[in-house]
Amino acid sequence: MESLEEFKAFIKKGHLEYRPNTSVDCVIFGYHEGELKVLLVRNKLLTKWCLPGGYIRKVETLEEAASRITMNRTGIGNLFLQQFKAFGNPDRNQSQTVDMNRLSEYVKMDSRNLGWLEGPTITIGFYAITDIVHAKPAPDIFSSECAWFPMTDLPKLGFDHDELVREALFSMRLHLYHFPIGKNLLPEKFTLREVKEFYEAMSGKELNASNFPNKLISLGLISKTKEKRKIGAHRSPVYYTFNKKAYEKALKEGLVLV
Amino acid sequence: MESLEEFKAFIKKGHLEYRPNTSVDCVIFGYHEGELKVLLVRNKLLTKWCLPGGYIRKVETLEEAASRITMNRTGIGNLFLQQFKAFGNPDRNQSQTVDMNRLSEYVKMDSRNLGWLEGPTITIGFYAITDIVHAKPAPDIFSSECAWFPMTDLPKLGFDHDELVREALFSMRLHLYHFPIGKNLLPEKFTLREVKEFYEAMSGKELNASNFPNKLISLGLISKTKEKRKIGAHRSPVYYTFNKKAYEKALKEGLVLV
Repeated sequence: MESLEEFKAFIKKGHLEYRPNTSVDCVIFGYHEGELKVLLVRNKLLTKWCLPGGYIRKVETLEEAASRITMNRTGIGNLFLQQFKAFGNPDRNQSQTVDMNRLSEYVKMDSRNLGWLEGPTITIGFYAITDIVHAKPAPDIFSSECAWFPMTDLPKLGFDHDELVREALFSMRLHLYHFPIGKNLLPEKFTLREVKEFYEAMSGKELNASNFPNKLISLGLISKTKEKRKIGAHRSPVYYTFNKKAYEKALKEGLVLV
Repeated sequence: MESLEEFKAFIKKGHLEYRPNTSVDCVIFGYHEGELKVLLVRNKLLTKWCLPGGYIRKVETLEEAASRITMNRTGIGNLFLQQFKAFGNPDRNQSQTVDMNRLSEYVKMDSRNLGWLEGPTITIGFYAITDIVHAKPAPDIFSSECAWFPMTDLPKLGFDHDELVREALFSMRLHLYHFPIGKNLLPEKFTLREVKEFYEAMSGKELNASNFPNKLISLGLISKTKEKRKIGAHRSPVYYTFNKKAYEKALKEGLVLV
């Protein structure tokens, strides 16, 4: 462990900086060229893969906590971030989180110091979306590794994080129809085929070729450029680009995209 | 006050039964014959109208707490209930909730007894939908009244509840496109015009006459009965009814309804 001291300090003094019994967990979706992945960290104590997460600082909003955590794990600020659900079953912290005796032994500290980590914890789930090539995955002090896993081949996760991924995916797939999300995920200029491919990866199903692309055009979210992709004499698809102003407005107000 | 003793007992012993610093607030939408309303309670201490809400019992899930609260305020169990957002700004409980000195004076108890009610509170927002005629509004021990207000003419609410209503409305209006919700709100048998009117009240905008009705038919959620409404010789619209099985499935799995 690189930073057992850092870990101990967190446990000893955490109650001064963080709210007890309340955390944020982040499902960070990564997209690149037609593939959807999820960023996971390998928890040192559970030795299982889990979602990146953390406690909420007393001075932070929930959104600021989620933004800090996604920034620290990916190296990218201002990700598209959405709260999707709070999880607070009374058994969350008994059956599903770290065993206190094991933690006490691990950090070689009296278990009385761990008091603020005990009791049922409510976690607020956020999801984020980034382009995989822009992210620099970095583990936190509780984790030994941080890596991308294909959505279609996730390991069994620790805690109740399988449920969190399921709920994040469900919410993200509803939001696909109500928020524009392709900016920063598609190249600066893209073809309509790339838009379709993007929405297929995100929604997990085959789509009618024109559904999302046509609606994005008719709502003024994307428009034609004068450039074409050079493929061959007879196949030179036009490049499209996002309209920043319409995009920002739709992101704020929501829309109906079907 | 009917029950100052009950109120005092809650404050004194609440920490044994409820989780500290975590509450549930409920935006209970009421629909009847084309009009959308919201159920509010008049807080005795703030003397302002607020959302119904309460602390979460240590043995309850968040959903169970929301279900108990909506049941107690409306007299109806098993309402359509959806979590929409958690609210946890660090200033929620300082600037926006009940003044502790005032509470202490009110209940004539030492303010040390109120400790478990202090500190920043995270609230989990749920919305519910019911038919107004089925509900029997009942205030809780913190409120003097409980009544329906038209969505288009709400008073300025206490705490940060204006924001909660805004966010609940935004979520409910997204969910309109992804969950069937008309059962128990429309009559047993209804015309397509009533379906349109219902979706217009819920979405707050004028809709194309056929949009929602046609999609509900094509997805098998509603179907024709053999009866017609008797209006006149030339205008006898057919009655439709919900298909229970398809409805329950869509409620569980979600759908795309546009």
